[in-house]
Amino acid sequence: AVRALDEKLHYADRAEIMEELSEELRQTYFELLDFEEASEVLEEVGSELFSELIEGMDEEKRSKVIDNMSQDDIVDKLSGLTEEKQEELLSYMDEDTASEVETLLEYEEDSAGGRMTKDYVTLTTEMTIDIAIEYLRQNAPGAETIYYVFVTDEAGILTGVISLRQLIVASPETKISEIMNENVISVYDDEDQEEVARLFSKYDFMVMPVVDKEEKLKGIITVDDILDVIEEEATEDIYKFAGSSDLEIYEEDDASWLRVVRSVRSRLPWLIITIFGGLLSGSVVARYQGTLDANAALAMFMPLLAGMGGNVGTQSSTITVRSIAVGYVEGKEAVRTFFLEVATGFAVGLVCSVIVGLAAMLTNSSTVISLIVGIAMFSNIVTAAAIGTLVPMIFKKLGVDPAVASAPFISTTVDITGLTIYFSLATVLIGKWMI
Amino acid sequence: AVRALDEKLHYADRAEIMEELSEELRQTYFELLDFEEASEVLEEVGSELFSELIEGMDEEKRSKVIDNMSQDDIVDKLSGLTEEKQEELLSYMDEDTASEVETLLEYEEDSAGGRMTKDYVTLTTEMTIDIAIEYLRQNAPGAETIYYVFVTDEAGILTGVISLRQLIVASPETKISEIMNENVISVYDDEDQEEVARLFSKYDFMVMPVVDKEEKLKGIITVDDILDVIEEEATEDIYKFAGSSDLEIYEEDDASWLRVVRSVRSRLPWLIITIFGGLLSGSVVARYQGTLDANAALAMFMPLLAGMGGNVGTQSSTITVRSIAVGYVEGKEAVRTFFLEVATGFAVGLVCSVIVGLAAMLTNSSTVISLIVGIAMFSNIVTAAAIGTLVPMIFKKLGVDPAVASAPFISTTVDITGLTIYFSLATVLIGKWMI
Ligand SMILES: [Mg+2]
Ligand SMILES: [Mg+2]
Ligand SMILES: [Mg+2]
Ligand SMILES: [Mg+2]
Ligand SMILES: [Mg+2]
Ligand SMILES: [Mg+2]
Ligand SMILES: [Mg+2]
Ligand SMILES: [Mg+2]
Ligand SMILES: [Mg+2]
Ligand SMILES: [Mg+2]
Ligand SMILES: [Mg+2]
Ligand SMILES: [Mg+2]
Ligand SMILES: [Mg+2]
Repeated sequence: AVRALDEKLHYADRAEIMEELSEELRQTYFELLDFEEASEVLEEVGSELFSELIEGMDEEKRSKVIDNMSQDDIVDKLSGLTEEKQEELLSYMDEDTASEVETLLEYEEDSAGGRMTKDYVTLTTEMTIDIAIEYLRQNAPGAETIYYVFVTDEAGILTGVISLRQLIVASPETKISEIMNENVISVYDDEDQEEVARLFSKYDFMVMPVVDKEEKLKGIITVDDILDVIEEEATEDIYKFAGSSDLEIYEEDDASWLRVVRSVRSRLPWLIITIFGGLLSGSVVARYQGTLDANAALAMFMPLLAGMGGNVGTQSSTITVRSIAVGYVEGKEAVRTFFLEVATGFAVGLVCSVIVGLAAMLTNSSTVISLIVGIAMFSNIVTAAAIGTLVPMIFKKLGVDPAVASAPFISTTVDITGLTIYFSLATVLIGKWMI
Repeated sequence: AVRALDEKLHYADRAEIMEELSEELRQTYFELLDFEEASEVLEEVGSELFSELIEGMDEEKRSKVIDNMSQDDIVDKLSGLTEEKQEELLSYMDEDTASEVETLLEYEEDSAGGRMTKDYVTLTTEMTIDIAIEYLRQNAPGAETIYYVFVTDEAGILTGVISLRQLIVASPETKISEIMNENVISVYDDEDQEEVARLFSKYDFMVMPVVDKEEKLKGIITVDDILDVIEEEATEDIYKFAGSSDLEIYEEDDASWLRVVRSVRSRLPWLIITIFGGLLSGSVVARYQGTLDANAALAMFMPLLAGMGGNVGTQSSTITVRSIAVGYVEGKEAVRTFFLEVATGFAVGLVCSVIVGLAAMLTNSSTVISLIVGIAMFSNIVTAAAIGTLVPMIFKKLGVDPAVASAPFISTTVDITGLTIYFSLATVLIGKWMI
């Protein structure tokens, strides 16, 4: 019955069902799959479930299943496991696969090498089209894609690329070298995955070749894995921006205590830095304690001023950091962005300071205090917009990740400038107008 | 010389060069391209440049160039232009193209229909493999992809999908209906692009069919456009999170004043809401003015407490919002996430409250105040973590976009709770211990 029900499901859905089932039912269900279905399901599940299912299989099916899996997916699962487990699982593979997987495991996880697979076929320049097509027919089953096939010379150096579309349209006796595209764009195996994704997006590639420093073809990366890269990199930037880190990108089966430890490790450094910022803000308040004591109403507007500065600064810095990440802020575009952000700060500042000034008059009635609050709000907002835009840009210039201009960092900085503006203005104006 | 230099460039690079050139040089360079190259370059440039270049061409080349462009790209350019411009450019197209483009223009830009193209070929169930391959050979040039081809019945209803790989491996006299995959996963034309991207990512598709409510095939979406969707949706979420909106996602050639207007419109509503939050915080301070007057030192720690609460709350809410967006927080995972966030708040709160308590003793010397500051810091951080996690989850339950739990919203909320904790604690403890 399970078999009949399941007949029409995509393997990604099967994997989802598996994750929900109890351990026993899971084994039963898994045993119903043939080796091709099993390997497709295994490509989709998490590291822990992968190792559980692999261990539950009999030896013969296991080697067929592993052999049929995409290597980049095997590598992904293995890198989520302990070294002992890795060794154990490697021992289940045939020699060839094991050694290729071991090579892939040596690359950084977020480099081109860590994302590539060795399941590909290559053609050589001297082949004719009909031989090439026949060759692909024979070798297609193991390959990740045959829609774009790379061409290498005798030394394994990448020399061209040809599409299956070109192959089936060309006349059978033509040589590969005559119709292949020699301007093939490749990446080095140590290239960051984010740069690889940028190239995929720019050139609309379906697959990219990965080469070593001698231009030898080492693997291929397919676009389906790049979808995951783009999502992962966006998450990384969002976490950094909140004053955390990519350590907090979990796998579903990570232990709870491990998640708490990683969360604390990611967030605490930023919070400790902002404690010192907060103490600095406090010292600003302490310095103007005289003004504050004489005009108790000033304390009431402290949270409003600090809060609004933080919000405006965070808006500007978030948008600047993201614009830098997606490549919008380059060259003179940076100067323009800065002026537009300050202009926005001006407009927003005008509206908010009028509202706040009026609110102050309604709640407090002293015109001087209302004026001080309004003017401070305006200056504070413009300053916050400027700081929020400049800090990530300066970080970028210095070669620091702009995302370090995180929300905690910016809002703490802006607290200090905002309170300084507020109290110094209050001290001067009250001194002038009230006495 | 330009021609020779350029021979080896990818069209995406050509488009980048074009954008940098002066208007005259650009025309000269563009005229050197044949119609296929020209249409590829046009697919990559912005709306304004597209209309400039199209208008500069002679009639004959123009119609060939437009005919050779991907329709989804034509639609993208047109939707960035005024209606008059759209009419003008539509008049340059042949009748078929113009009517197809007009159909596509009617869809919402961020729906499946707005992303799809009509440049595809279909096969029918009764074709044999050799006829199908020959058919693809003839019709390939105009199609966006022939690696996955959809199969329809006489009524145009989507009935299956077949890959070119299957086609070249199968024996020539087999019928399409015998080897096609009938479990084809499609999307409706009004589906949100974000959901489409989720399906691409889950199933590792290269192309997806778009159907209307009668299951008639209406268009296809290719994965290269989905890369852009994922990046765009991440940007949208990041902007919302900062208390802004996708209105601020600019095209490079948008006018400066327009950008400022859109920035102000996006950000001001959030800031005005937080003004009222800030005034509420102020009323908390005002309510405890007596405690504050009697213990001036309390004012010094207000920025620190409010700031830290905002930071912790923003960390929790950012991570929760993103986790919801990428699908990590579902069912009982939500409860677990909540407890893990609160546990993290506990750990972080312990460390921070000790540091802050010690700092208070060093700068202030009153043990009672230091204790108050430390305890308030701890309670504030735990509360902030809980609020930052709960609010986006509640929004999700209510069917509101969780990203509405933006940084400004959370930090303003947490300011209010933080100050209430601080001053009520101070009032009680000072009353108890000091008098
Ligand atoms: Mg990997
Ligand atoms: Mg692209
Ligand atoms: Mg494109
Ligand atoms: Mg893969
Ligand atoms: Mg990154
Ligand atoms: Mg990275
Ligand atoms: Mg479109
Ligand atoms: Mg995927
Ligand atoms: Mg995959
Ligand atoms: Mg397209
Ligand atoms: Mg969205
Ligand atoms: Mg959207
Ligand atoms: Mg704040």
